[in-house]
Amino acid sequence: MPPRYEVIGIEGIPEIRPGDDVARLIAEAAARQATPLAPGDCLVVGQKIVSKAEGRIVRLADVTPSPVAEALAPGLARDPRLVELILRESRRVVRMDQGVLITETHHGWVCANAGVDQSNVELDCVALLPQDPDRSARQLRERLRALAGAEVAVIVADTFGRPWREGLTNVAIGLAGFAPIRSYLGERDPAGRPLQATILALADELAAAAEPVMGKLDRIPAALVRGLALAPGDEGSKPLLRDPARDLFR
Amino acid sequence: MPPRYEVIGIEGIPEIRPGDDVARLIAEAAARQATPLAPGDCLVVGQKIVSKAEGRIVRLADVTPSPVAEALAPGLARDPRLVELILRESRRVVRMDQGVLITETHHGWVCANAGVDQSNVELDCVALLPQDPDRSARQLRERLRALAGAEVAVIVADTFGRPWREGLTNVAIGLAGFAPIRSYLGERDPAGRPLQATILALADELAAAAEPVMGKLDRIPAALVRGLALAPGDEGSKPLLRDPARDLFR
Repeated sequence: MPPRYEVIGIEGIPEIRPGDDVARLIAEAAARQATPLAPGDCLVVGQKIVSKAEGRIVRLADVTPSPVAEALAPGLARDPRLVELILRESRRVVRMDQGVLITETHHGWVCANAGVDQSNVELDCVALLPQDPDRSARQLRERLRALAGAEVAVIVADTFGRPWREGLTNVAIGLAGFAPIRSYLGERDPAGRPLQATILALADELAAAAEPVMGKLDRIPAALVRGLALAPGDEGSKPLLRDPARDLFR
Repeated sequence: MPPRYEVIGIEGIPEIRPGDDVARLIAEAAARQATPLAPGDCLVVGQKIVSKAEGRIVRLADVTPSPVAEALAPGLARDPRLVELILRESRRVVRMDQGVLITETHHGWVCANAGVDQSNVELDCVALLPQDPDRSARQLRERLRALAGAEVAVIVADTFGRPWREGLTNVAIGLAGFAPIRSYLGERDPAGRPLQATILALADELAAAAEPVMGKLDRIPAALVRGLALAPGDEGSKPLLRDPARDLFR
């Protein structure tokens, strides 16, 4: 039997509000479409609905921009209150040029606008990334175990750009229940030579795999990756953070 | 019906030699495992077997390093002949530090070692990337149409590292038969606001989706992505190359 797996979008998840039980709403939607969560599934959830449930939505009218945000905003052609939120969510500015603001978030992810996003939230509001996406993933996993009796892996995902290549890809910003890196270190190829290119970012590949069925417009904020055997792990997404000392692009 | 698709590894593809008809060998292997190529499939093929079939394997004994390669090799702790090949495959060195050599290939891809790789080839040999991976993909697609009567999309993929995040992911370096970028430009969210994060690198996400079933050690150099409706396109991988003028990390 060849190795194979399936990716299934979960339709019918309602608009999420602060305090909603996202795990239950996802499990119910999956069951309604006759693909109930099953042990061994990996659930990929878009960051936006997690942020909404966790109340990480901010009304711009409630934000007072700092003098720094006021000073930077014109060069970025952005609302100073939005710039203020991006700076608050950041540990460091990595690049600021051509109207693009790339920062390192407090979690350690490098991305545009610290992940602060205005799409698919109410007008005059923006969504921040979850405060601790690994914790969010862990809580979803635990709640799904309680609700559905199923041991599932969970990825909280967002679409990030990257240098050199056009287009965003979905990546893991938080996860629970599996090891996000697959390593071939120490393995040898058929000629007996140690394998190169030996550390694969499996969690990012699974987040990417889920994206094509997660419609931005047709409200499919979650997907199941079904049929892959994942290695256990309890470090969350931390192994995906590159050690700054080994990063040539900081 | 929820959107869903499947990823199927293709086992039993023999060791590839220069001049081999890779399309035929893949189609036969897929048929043997009862998952024959079907119209609408997207075939993801690892770069290595394409390079092997196209004779892009070089014996290090046949390489005379230039003075520049000789001078750089000790700092990189690499064989000067390997450094010579990497430089020949490159248009520009992007970073050289900590034993890592990141260059821009003649195709325009930015990656470690210009994609020159020593794994899974004979000892004392290295594999170069295909000269024109879009042409390789196009030829595979045409040959598969002739052989299997199936109109399939094709991606030639390789595993690349990226800044800031640990681990490699599989990306598209050549493709044929579909549009690699999915754009939401001009679309609006339910609040009527233009969508942000609107350009998705679908081809890279599909390459990534294929990787978990493409074993480096168990010789699964190709996979089918089945069940996604892909938009037509005939620009190959070019839309994935970021315009250098809009790249903040060159």
